Amino acid sequence: MFSISRRSEVEPFHAMDVLAEATRRRASGHPVISMAVGQPSHPTPQAALDAARAALAKGRIGYTDALGTARLKQALAEHYRDRHGLDIDPLRIAITTGSSAGFNLAFLSLFDAGDAVAIARPGYPAYRNILAALGLKIIEVPVTAETHFTLTPESLEAAQQEGGVRLKGVLLASPANPTGTVTGREGLKTLGDYCAANSIAFISDEIYHGLTFAGEETSALELTGEAVVINSFSKYYCMTGWRIGWMVLPERLVRTIERVAQSLYISPPELSQIAATAALNATAELDLYRASYARNRDFLMRRLPEIGLSIASPMDGAFYAYVDVTRFTNDSMAFAKRMLAEIDVAATPGFDFDPLEGNRTMRMSYAGSEAEIAEAVERIGVWLK
Amino acid sequence: MFSISRRSEVEPFHAMDVLAEATRRRASGHPVISMAVGQPSHPTPQAALDAARAALAKGRIGYTDALGTARLKQALAEHYRDRHGLDIDPLRIAITTGSSAGFNLAFLSLFDAGDAVAIARPGYPAYRNILAALGLKIIEVPVTAETHFTLTPESLEAAQQEGGVRLKGVLLASPANPTGTVTGREGLKTLGDYCAANSIAFISDEIYHGLTFAGEETSALELTGEAVVINSFSKYYCMTGWRIGWMVLPERLVRTIERVAQSLYISPPELSQIAATAALNATAELDLYRASYARNRDFLMRRLPEIGLSIASPMDGAFYAYVDVTRFTNDSMAFAKRMLAEIDVAATPGFDFDPLEGNRTMRMSYAGSEAEIAEAVERIGVWLK
Repeated sequence: MFSISRRSEVEPFHAMDVLAEATRRRASGHPVISMAVGQPSHPTPQAALDAARAALAKGRIGYTDALGTARLKQALAEHYRDRHGLDIDPLRIAITTGSSAGFNLAFLSLFDAGDAVAIARPGYPAYRNILAALGLKIIEVPVTAETHFTLTPESLEAAQQEGGVRLKGVLLASPANPTGTVTGREGLKTLGDYCAANSIAFISDEIYHGLTFAGEETSALELTGEAVVINSFSKYYCMTGWRIGWMVLPERLVRTIERVAQSLYISPPELSQIAATAALNATAELDLYRASYARNRDFLMRRLPEIGLSIASPMDGAFYAYVDVTRFTNDSMAFAKRMLAEIDVAATPGFDFDPLEGNRTMRMSYAGSEAEIAEAVERIGVWLK
Repeated sequence: MFSISRRSEVEPFHAMDVLAEATRRRASGHPVISMAVGQPSHPTPQAALDAARAALAKGRIGYTDALGTARLKQALAEHYRDRHGLDIDPLRIAITTGSSAGFNLAFLSLFDAGDAVAIARPGYPAYRNILAALGLKIIEVPVTAETHFTLTPESLEAAQQEGGVRLKGVLLASPANPTGTVTGREGLKTLGDYCAANSIAFISDEIYHGLTFAGEETSALELTGEAVVINSFSKYYCMTGWRIGWMVLPERLVRTIERVAQSLYISPPELSQIAATAALNATAELDLYRASYARNRDFLMRRLPEIGLSIASPMDGAFYAYVDVTRFTNDSMAFAKRMLAEIDVAATPGFDFDPLEGNRTMRMSYAGSEAEIAEAVERIGVWLK
């Protein structure tokens, strides 16, 4: 009998387990409202759907270059010019099969087994799980209100001292999942400079760009040519299920990423690339959705504390409320299961984001419709009583 | 300045480089015919296009469960019942983002860094490159006419002795890329039994199933419940650019694969899953395409030797001619470049498939239209004179 590898003993992505359970319940007729997974309930923008339809009419959907179509790379370069006033060579852009592929490619290309990489705790669980599967040393740096839930040179220094390691990489998300924290230009610059001075690769996760509700939204590209930027069409562009994202790379990393991508992914899905190219121009439609998230955010910031769920972090960007459930439980996993079983509301146990203290928190996505969010909060409020 | 990892120093997938160059030439007006990449020139089957269109009309394309939709898994279980007389529990099926994800998930879940895994030489280059990126020890087992270009317990024993290792895994493709060899029921059974007796994981790459032109097409699932089977909608189903495939797993591996897939891929593209479900019923249309490959195969088996390119392996399945170019060059890479530059015909240097002897071979895909293949051979014939 074959054996199963040690490195695959990663934690489940609990949000995906909750999604699977929610899907099963919905299929058997339950009125499930899901706040578990970070995905907009809004449709793919019309222009993207139209572009996909036109491609289907031609019928042949094939491999593209491993790093994506020239058209989408060009369109993204224009996006950086228009939005950020930046002149990015399209050849520095790599189209990826979602940001998931971006993280995997970045980690494989920058780090060898045993290298130490810092991430924030709480933070996106797939970082931790991919790093673990690739044999990397994960340095979880606790972030707190004291530093506005972001990483700083001081916290990185402390983590290295404590762990007895020198970092090879630092990954920062802004806006961040699940904390919603936004790292401003100054903070980002300080961090980028610190990484540059210490030969540390700096990975900037910008997949919640476009969804900043307070504070300033800065791309690491504005500050340094050495950052590895990861982005996606899943969030602001409402295209989760298309699995399409991109990276902006320091020039000397491009060919490495291409070589690895050729074998690991062949190419990103062509239809998704066509749709994404059109989505870049759909900002009028997308900004309406964004406004609805903003209203959800206001609603939750007001209502959640009223029903006993205090908000544990800033909610400045992304579309999550990270709440403290200490008043009700010391086991957020059991809490999430009961909530789904008893009132058909799905949310994600904090354990996904914080293996040490996540037993006391839950993440609720507010990317659903306003009616859904209101109904979910109503159900939870009654249930908690 | 950050450094680039050692493990990302994998070979390029030369076929993808050739594709990128062919795309550039075509964009600047050259009449390029590509036999470089293994993809049908035929369109996605009509039923699949229709299903995708219907899903677009609904507008919301979202995450699915990490291992795919229940519907597609159910449809694949029925496929195994109808085609192979097998009763496969849909819960043993994992939908993946192309077979690429299947290989990555299988390798990560079965092997730890340093483990030895056997593959055939010549063979599909992405095996080698993914294994290398994941820190695995690659045991390339030369396959020759003597064993009909397949792996045998004897060749595996010899390779282990020579390499001074015990294998943790064996990967066999049937039909095989680039050799076209088909391993029959008996050979597959012997190999599966050998792996079982030696606690070696057996990975059966069946992505060219449906494209067997000589010999018998057997799924490893007919012979053992312990094989990890990898398949795809790219080849027979003409859906390369949709990036959708599947695995059939031993039951005790399912949850491991699910956990790793949750973080590395989130979910396979939803639209592709919807289209693939419909494609499973499009065999009438697809068998017409298959018949055109068969005609291309007959044509190439006759014409290639006439123009000086002798056929180096069986061509029993898949859609490649693997030819010997020794009469013209000792450097297949340079040969491929010149052929593309001078007559706009793209094919893949054998170096992709065989790092030791591939300088003397080329792979030509015959999944193109009959007119294209005829034109390409005409150009090559004139050029070689």
